[in-house]
Order: sequence, then C-alpha cells, then structure tokens
Amino acid sequence: MKANHSLLDLLLEAQTLDRIPRSGFVMRGVTDPESVTEHTWHVILLVWTLGPRIAGIDVHRAMEIALLHDLAELRIGDLPRTSAPYFPDGAKNTAESAAMADVLAPVAARALPLYEEYQQGKTAEARLVKACDKLQLMVKVAVYERWGNGALAEFWDNPDNFPDGGFPAVRELFEELRERRNSTLRERFRRSARSPAATAAGGGGRRPSGRGATGRCR
Amino acid sequence: MKANHSLLDLLLEAQTLDRIPRSGFVMRGVTDPESVTEHTWHVILLVWTLGPRIAGIDVHRAMEIALLHDLAELRIGDLPRTSAPYFPDGAKNTAESAAMADVLAPVAARALPLYEEYQQGKTAEARLVKACDKLQLMVKVAVYERWGNGALAEFWDNPDNFPDGGFPAVRELFEELRERRNSTLRERFRRSARSPAATAAGGGGRRPSGRGATGRCR
Amino acid sequence: MKANHSLLDLLLEAQTLDRIPRSGFVMRGVTDPESVTEHTWHVILLVWTLGPRIAGIDVHRAMEIALLHDLAELRIGDLPRTSAPYFPDGAKNTAESAAMADVLAPVAARALPLYEEYQQGKTAEARLVKACDKLQLMVKVAVYERWGNGALAEFWDNPDNFPDGGFPAVRELFEELRERRNSTLRERFRRSARSPAATAAGGGGRRPSGRGATGRCR
Amino acid sequence: MKANHSLLDLLLEAQTLDRIPRSGFVMRGVTDPESVTEHTWHVILLVWTLGPRIAGIDVHRAMEIALLHDLAELRIGDLPRTSAPYFPDGAKNTAESAAMADVLAPVAARALPLYEEYQQGKTAEARLVKACDKLQLMVKVAVYERWGNGALAEFWDNPDNFPDGGFPAVRELFEELRERRNSTLRERFRRSARSPAATAAGGGGRRPSGRGATGRCR
Amino acid sequence: MKANHSLLDLLLEAQTLDRIPRSGFVMRGVTDPESVTEHTWHVILLVWTLGPRIAGIDVHRAMEIALLHDLAELRIGDLPRTSAPYFPDGAKNTAESAAMADVLAPVAARALPLYEEYQQGKTAEARLVKACDKLQLMVKVAVYERWGNGALAEFWDNPDNFPDGGFPAVRELFEELRERRNSTLRERFRRSARSPAATAAGGGGRRPSGRGATGRCR
Amino acid sequence: MKANHSLLDLLLEAQTLDRIPRSGFVMRGVTDPESVTEHTWHVILLVWTLGPRIAGIDVHRAMEIALLHDLAELRIGDLPRTSAPYFPDGAKNTAESAAMADVLAPVAARALPLYEEYQQGKTAEARLVKACDKLQLMVKVAVYERWGNGALAEFWDNPDNFPDGGFPAVRELFEELRERRNSTLRERFRRSARSPAATAAGGGGRRPSGRGATGRCR
Repeated sequence: MKANHSLLDLLLEAQTLDRIPRSGFVMRGVTDPESVTEHTWHVILLVWTLGPRIAGIDVHRAMEIALLHDLAELRIGDLPRTSAPYFPDGAKNTAESAAMADVLAPVAARALPLYEEYQQGKTAEARLVKACDKLQLMVKVAVYERWGNGALAEFWDNPDNFPDGGFPAVRELFEELRERRNSTLRERFRRSARSPAATAAGGGGRRPSGRGATGRCR
Repeated sequence: MKANHSLLDLLLEAQTLDRIPRSGFVMRGVTDPESVTEHTWHVILLVWTLGPRIAGIDVHRAMEIALLHDLAELRIGDLPRTSAPYFPDGAKNTAESAAMADVLAPVAARALPLYEEYQQGKTAEARLVKACDKLQLMVKVAVYERWGNGALAEFWDNPDNFPDGGFPAVRELFEELRERRNSTLRERFRRSARSPAATAAGGGGRRPSGRGATGRCR
Repeated sequence: MKANHSLLDLLLEAQTLDRIPRSGFVMRGVTDPESVTEHTWHVILLVWTLGPRIAGIDVHRAMEIALLHDLAELRIGDLPRTSAPYFPDGAKNTAESAAMADVLAPVAARALPLYEEYQQGKTAEARLVKACDKLQLMVKVAVYERWGNGALAEFWDNPDNFPDGGFPAVRELFEELRERRNSTLRERFRRSARSPAATAAGGGGRRPSGRGATGRCR
Repeated sequence: MKANHSLLDLLLEAQTLDRIPRSGFVMRGVTDPESVTEHTWHVILLVWTLGPRIAGIDVHRAMEIALLHDLAELRIGDLPRTSAPYFPDGAKNTAESAAMADVLAPVAARALPLYEEYQQGKTAEARLVKACDKLQLMVKVAVYERWGNGALAEFWDNPDNFPDGGFPAVRELFEELRERRNSTLRERFRRSARSPAATAAGGGGRRPSGRGATGRCR
Repeated sequence: MKANHSLLDLLLEAQTLDRIPRSGFVMRGVTDPESVTEHTWHVILLVWTLGPRIAGIDVHRAMEIALLHDLAELRIGDLPRTSAPYFPDGAKNTAESAAMADVLAPVAARALPLYEEYQQGKTAEARLVKACDKLQLMVKVAVYERWGNGALAEFWDNPDNFPDGGFPAVRELFEELRERRNSTLRERFRRSARSPAATAAGGGGRRPSGRGATGRCR
Repeated sequence: MKANHSLLDLLLEAQTLDRIPRSGFVMRGVTDPESVTEHTWHVILLVWTLGPRIAGIDVHRAMEIALLHDLAELRIGDLPRTSAPYFPDGAKNTAESAAMADVLAPVAARALPLYEEYQQGKTAEARLVKACDKLQLMVKVAVYERWGNGALAEFWDNPDNFPDGGFPAVRELFEELRERRNSTLRERFRRSARSPAATAAGGGGRRPSGRGATGRCR
C-alpha cells in the first residue's frame, strides 16, 4: 500500500477507521466496543469544550491535532498497550510518522506538522490533546462499567491514565469523573445489598418508591 | 416512500423491522438488544396467555392489535422515549397513524380500525395490549439484568412502566416479576458476599454443594 | 431443565428465543440473521394477511398455531436441515412434542392440541401455517439476496421450499415473489453490465437519470 | 430527561452516540453500519480537507458546526428519511433545536448559535457542512457497495444526495467519487464476466497475472 | 447434503464451524460467544499442555481426537444440553457418528477410529479430551463472568462440569480455576463494598493507590 | 503485562485470542470475520490432513507448530500486512519472539523451540505450516466471496498468498481451490445473466429445474 495519491483516496481509506475497534476494550471483553473513529470524535469534543477553560490555548489548532492524531492506525492498526515493551524504543513512533506521511500525503503540508507537534508533546495544544486522549478513555471506561462490564477496574489504578497536561480544568474533570463513577458503584451496591432484602421481608417495594432520581450517569 | 401497493410490498418491507433495535435498550448499552419484531412477538404471546384470565376479552382481536401495533416504526423508526417532549402534542400519534396507513395500505380495511382502537386505548382489548407492551418491556429488563447489564435499574422506579389496564391478572404478573427480579439480585449478592469468602477461608467449596436449584430466572 | 411451573417461568424462558439464530442462514454466511422469534412473527403476519383470502380458514386458530409452532427450539435449538438424515425417523418430531409439553406446561390445555394439529398437518389451518413457514423463509431469502448475500441461490431450486398447502392464494404469492426476485437480479445485472460502461464512455451519468423508480424490492 | 447540568453530564451522554446506527443503512441491510459518531467525524475531516480549497471559508467555524450538527440525535434518535412526510412541516427542526438546547446546555452560549447557523443554512460555512453531510453519505455508500452490499444503488439516483453548496471543489469531488464507483463496478463485472470463463477454457489463470493494481477503491 | 467427496469439500465446509456459536452461552445471554471452532482450539491447547503431566498419555493421538471431536456439529449444530432428555437414548451419539462419517469421508480411514475412541471414552487419551472439553468450558465461564456476564453461576454447581478423567493434573487445574474465580469475585465485592464509600467519606482515592496488582484474571 | 506465571495464567489469557479479529478481513469490510483462534484451528486441520500426503513430514510436530504459531498476537495484536513497511527490518519478528516467551513462559521448554523453528522456516514442518497459513487464508477468502463480500479479489492476484513450501500436495490444493472459486463465480454470473431473463420472457422457471446440484462450494 502506497501513499495516497488524491484526496478521494484518503477519504475512502479513512472510512475503514470505523471498523478498527479499540484494542484495550477488545482484550477486556467489551462487546461492540468503540471504534478508533468514535474515540477520535470524542477527543475533538473534549478539546472543544475544555479548550476555552484554559488560558492561551489555540482551540482550533488543538481540534486539528485531535482530528488527525490516530490516523496512522489505518495502516498499523490499534496496537494494544501490551505490545509496547516488545518493540525497540521509538519504533512505534517512527512507524506512526511514516504511516501518517503515506495516509495524509494529499494534505501533507497542513497535516504533518500538526502530527509532529502532537508526537513531541511540548506545546500546550499537544498536551491538551494528549490529556483528552486519556480523559476520553476514562469517560468511556465509566460508561462501560455502568453498562455492566466487569473487567475494567484496573484502568482506575493506573496513573498513566490520568495525565492532566498541567491544566487544572482537566484535573478537575478527572476528579469529578472518578467521584461520579464511585457514586454509581455505591448506588448499585446499596441497591443490591439492601432494597431487595427489605422487599422480601416486608412485601412492600412493589410500587415504585418516590425516592426520586437514581444516581444518573447517563 | 409511498403507500405499499401490493401485499408483497408490505411483506418485503416488514422484514426490515427485524433490523430496528429497541432504542431504550440501545441507549443503555445493551448489546444485541431485541428488535421491534421480537418485542412484538412477545407482546402477542403475553396477550394470548393473559387474555383468557380476563373475563370478556376478545383474545383474537387483542392478538391482531398486538400484531400490528408497532408497524409504523418501519417508516418512523423506534423513537426513544426521550424524544417525546421535543415534539408538539399529538405529533407522534399523527405521524404513526399516517405511516400505518401507508405501510398497511394493502390490508387497510382490516388493519386501520385495529390501530385506531389501539391509539384510543378505550376498549378492554386495547388496554390489554398497552399493558402487555410494558409488561414485555419489564420482562426483558429482568432478563437483561440477569445477564449482566447494569444500567437498567431506573426502569423499575418509573410507574409508567407498570400499567395494569385495570386487570388484576396483569397486576399480579407485574408483582411476581418484580419479586423474581429482586430474588435474583438477592441470590447474586449473597453469593458474592459470602460463599467465595467462605471458600477461601475453609478450603472447601471446591466440590459443588448439594444446595439444589439456584434461584433460576430462566 | 424441567417443565415450566408458572406462566412467568414460561415468559422468562421465551425471551431467549430472540438469541437463537435461524441455522439455515447461519450456515450460509448471513451476518446478523433473523432469530427464531423474528421468523415466527412474520409467519403470524402472513397467516393474518393470507387467511381471509382462503375460504373456510379459521384465521385466529391459524394465528395461534403460528404463534407457538417453533417454541420447542427453546430446549432443542434450531436444528439445521442437514441434521435430518442422521436421526431415526420421527425422532425429531417426538423430541419437539416432548419439549413443547415442558415449555408450555403452564398453558398446556390450550397449547398442546394446537401443536399436535400442526405436527399432523391435516387441517386447513395447519397446512396454511406450514405453507407460511416456507413462504416466510423465501421472502427473507429474497431480502438477504437483495442486501448482498451470495450463497442463497440454492433455496430457489428446492421444491420443498414452495409448498402451497393446496391454496391458490399461497401459490400466487410464491410466484409473485419469484418474479420479483428475478426482476431485482435482472435490474442489478443490467446496471452493472451497461450503465457504468456508458458513463465511462460518454462522461454522462453524473446527473441522476429520470428513469423513475428502481426495481424496488423494499 | 432534562437539560444537562454539567459538562460531565454532557460528556457521558455523548458516549451513547456511538450506539446509534445510521438508520438509512440499517433499513437497507448493512450489517455493522456506521454510527452517528462515525458519520460526524468523517464530516469534520471533509470540512477540514475541503475548506481551504474554497475562498473565504472560515474552516474552524465550519469544523465546530460539523462537530455539533447531529447531537440532537442523542435525544431524538436518527430519524429515517422516510419519516419526514409524516410529521408537520418544521416539526423535526423544532424538535432538534429544543433537544440541542438541552444536550448542549453546559456550553450553550458557544454551541447554540452554531447550530442555528447550520439549520438556517445561509452562511458559506453552514452550506459547506450540509454539502459534506451528503458527501460523507455517498463516500460511505461507495465503500459499502464495494464491500458487497447490494441494496444501495438508489442513493446514486437521488439528486438530493449531491448538494454542492455552490462550491466547485465539492462538485468535483462528487463527480470523482461517482466515476470511481462506476469504475469499481465495471472492473468487478469484467472479472466475473470474462476471466473465470477464460480460466476454465484455457486452464490458465492459476498463476496471478502481472496485470498490476486492481481498480483500488480503498 | 451428502458425504464430502474431496478434501477441498471438507475444508470449505469446515469454515462454517466458525459461525456456530456455543449454545450454552447463547441461551445465557453471552453476547458474541465463542464459536465451536474456538472451543475446539482451546481444547487442543489444553490437551497439549496437560498431556505431558500425565504418565503414559500419547499426547499426539489426544490432540488428533481433540481436533476432530466436535466436527459433527457442521451437520447437526450445537445441540443445547437441555435437548438431551427429549431424544431417545443413544440417538445423539448415533447421529453424530453418522454425520462424522459424511463430513470426514475424504479422510475416513484416519479420522473415524479416533472419533469412535472418543465416543467410547475408555482410553486415557479419550478421557483426557473429555475432561479438557469441560475444563475449557469452565475456563471460558470464568472469563465471561469476569467480563460481566451474570447468568453463569449455575455452571459451578453442576458436578458434570468437573470430570477429571482420573488424572490428578486435571483435578488440580479445576481446583486452581475455582479458587481464581472466587478470588476475582471477592476482590470485586470488596471494591464495590468498601473503597467507593471510603472515597466518598474521605475525599481520598482520587489518586491511584499504590496497591499493586489487582487480582488479575487475565 | 509480564510473563505468565502459571499454566492457568496462560489458559485465561489465551481465551482472549477469540476476540482478536483477523485484520486483513476487518479492513476489507468483512462483518463478523474469523478470529485468530479460528484461523489457527483451521491451520491445524490443514496440517493434519495434508501432512500424510507429504513424504517425511512429522505431522505431530507440524501440528504443534501450527497450534502455537500466532500466540504472540495475544500481546501484539494482529498487525495488518500494511504495517510491515513502517517497522524496521526484523522488528516484528523480534517482538513476536519476545511476546511468545512471555505468553508461553509456563511451557517454555517445549514451546519456544517450536516457535523458533517456525520463524526460521527451514524444516519441512515449518514450511508446511507457513504454506497452510496462506492456504487457510485463501480458503476463507473463497468462502467470504461466496457469501457476498466484494472486496477480496485482490487476494487472488498476490503471489505471496500462494506459497507451496515445495510440496506438490499443497500446490494442487491451491489450484483446485482457485478453480472452484472461479467456477462459483461463473455459475453466479450465468444465473444473473441468463436465467432470470429467460424466466421473465417465458414465464417458466417458477418450478425448480431438475438441473441437479448447484455448483456447490459448501
């Protein structure tokens, strides 16, 4: 497979990004997990919503970086995190840059500097996208846990999943998310520990209680 | 898309009902949720089993109403419940009636009065179908919860999901279902709270206990 | 697994019918094939639409037979047609009757005579359901072929798939279906054989033609 | 469901957009069709790549419009096109605006004017997004056809699917896409019409020919 | 469907084994459950890893038996366990033998004696494959439970799922598996019972703890 | 992720191989494509059936090599072929060996020499497995094409997909497969080009012809 020749080549190839599932979820038994395309859209949304809360960020450049940041996966796939120690240092980065150059050839002049900026991770915009890349991961983990997946707890124990890029607005959102997730688990535990037992004993509970909103996470 | 011209047009179009997933489950992360077709079959089964327990019900007319009650979704889709407040009062009903007329055109004389009866909801048969429409929902919720979905608890708190149409036979089934669901949750809680710990402590439990049937919900 | 004890047992078990895919389609590479539940609903619809075209049919009893006719698959699964020669004569029928008795135990008095009538296949109602069982199969085959499945042609060559139960109304629908299917294939062949070539030669075809309706099969 | 209270509410709700399949594909038998999220990401990519080819476009505002343009579907679902004639004029637009206001409440000041601009469709940016909304549709249709779906030909006959917003760059891409699609069909026809027959006759063809690249559409 | 004529017939038919889901999981709501092909590969792996721990086993013959043991399902499907009481004694075995003879006709001389050995279950190799057939089942059950499926607990209570074939190496692995499963449940219970509550109370827990490895089951 | 400590660690990790789809099919729009586990089982079957046709092959060692040959994908994923040019020479091989060592640590003494033999590809057994690795690919391509996938033709043009390892038995099977595939396409072309037209003209064809077996590829 060579470098894309025309914009149409690029657009047609890009459609297959929808069929690449996120490998971290695949390996943990999530059925119908998000695609790389879906992940990427959520990262753009995060950048767009958080950007204005951070002084000095060029929101639009950050959105462009987010738009493109995972396109190398069209050629390389979504390598699982477990693959990292088996490749030589820097091999994955080098491969991604080369794949990016081929995928984005028809728009190379605009695209490749943005990707290089992302890989180097030094500008505020690059740091914001990297932080949102993980923030999106953890938002989705919270949603999948709420839907019933049971094998994702380890994500919450890994500090690498909580980079804030130095931005308080990101850190606060991570904290709020963790608290929301814990609150959902607590609510679920309370329901299964208490109410059904009471129901059995008292014969009540057949009418919906007036307890109001459940700890809503959606 | 126009009114169906022949019975074959209707039959071919009806096949696509199998591909319309029930939106309430889609939005709560149920993977491979029931289709509108599947929902409808279960409603007919409910009507057929409950009908004879209710004095004066014309079971066959109720079955016909159930058979047809969701066919407008072939043209309109399965609008999520959250959409209701955003449309003008009555707009959804009007749209469904018009879609029904086009879908069922080849059998209009028999079909449309049945649908109108359903929408008005005054006859015992229409009320029974409406009650079974929700009863089927809650039976499926119980099954999905047992299979592991964690985001469906709120259904049990919404009184709108428990209409009995004025029929004791329906009310009793709702109550029995709620008790069964609670009993399944209790059993699960007991297992996870106690037995594994005991096993770990005592080294026993490696042989299956003779405890007999698990609280079976299937 | 024993006979169902209560109506609720039956209703909960029946939900799993949605997860049993039709084996004939599974073995021919149809992705996301119809479930046994979906098949059954379409058979009821067929019975309801065709019944009144046949003198002397009790449409409602036929609908009841259709509703129940495949419920033994909850215990036995959807045996592929290829399995038939490997079992002793009558073994499958015997197994289905016994499974039916267990599944439908809570409504045995009403249900089992209907199933026995179906198996014997002598009454007009039983013959109509058997014919619609195949008619539904072929309608779905036509739809899957139109959607792109390429391995279903053999169904059209098997006379067993076209029983008319002695009813002209059924025979006519089979014929109309076969003609519709052939017309769809012809239209597809014509498009791929001619128009793109013309387009390439003449540079036209970029504007949609005014040719009117495509041979619509949905 | 009320207006989202915090940014986290919005982010959590937005994750479910991944589970809403595009109804036009669902109804035509595409298995595992793109989600609304995936569609949206591709529209942003189109806007970003085409924008600079159009004088006077504010690419970044257009990207923001694209990012948000389908978020009302979180509450309303992806209404199939066939539903349009059944609702009163303007009802869908009104519903979408109201749903947007609730979904995007935490970022209303930035978001709602962008959506209003999109609905009115007068600015160059709004017209570009509307054109790319259809361009993405047709690119995906071309990909699904190449993968084997057989029921999508009618899309190419509907002029509403080819709005160019008045921009030559969009029109050219539509034309190039149509030619690519026709060329792929031609190549497929040629292969099935000729080469296998030749192979059968001559016994050759067992070794891959040196014919070079196949008419590649991916 | 007749006996396969050539090796290629057999190989082509064998590909469809990938589409036959294991019925025990289907009926308990596991989404995207393992196929019969996948089950079989894991049984071979088990045989290959456990064989050398058992004195006197011919590992290679055992691997051959494992490779072939479920191929009759190509013709008969994966009959659910619930079907057993509905067929005459021995009917399933007879059917499987006959189906095997047809499927494996092109390699009958090598294949059929291996299958007969398996059915009789007397040799050490046949007993090992039978034990691994269940061991694989329970390993998968443990994995699906960890991923969130909630309806599989009954498998652990059925002594038929824990045959050791008389081999201590198998028995030990069953015991280790049960302990691992219990430990995973315990860990999950502890997390949901304690830590979120603590988090809420103390405001801590927002930073990942240094607690080290989670009770890892994958 | 570290080296597996116990056999049970290995067995639990191996279950996730079922969820890794073969990337070459994913990227070409095959829905529900085979998993790496499924691919591997078919390779073992091929080795077992072809081995005895080749003088001097140790079938059992070849089966062991086949059993293990893709297990590195548990850590690295199924890298698409398009990724190859982006990594340094040998990087993929080195990564796979290291991943293999970690995955198979509990059985290292038996497993690693087999994998090294495979990578070096010099023994007849290693060459046979490598040939069957591609033969399985092409058998599956033929099946997916028959089922309707339209984007796989390029596989037949790539000589790398037809390695025979120097064994006539393998070469003959490749040739027979290609002829079977061409014959299936020819039959399909003939059907769509001729029979429906004839049917339309003559009004015949409603009864199945006595033509006997369709060009059966399953």
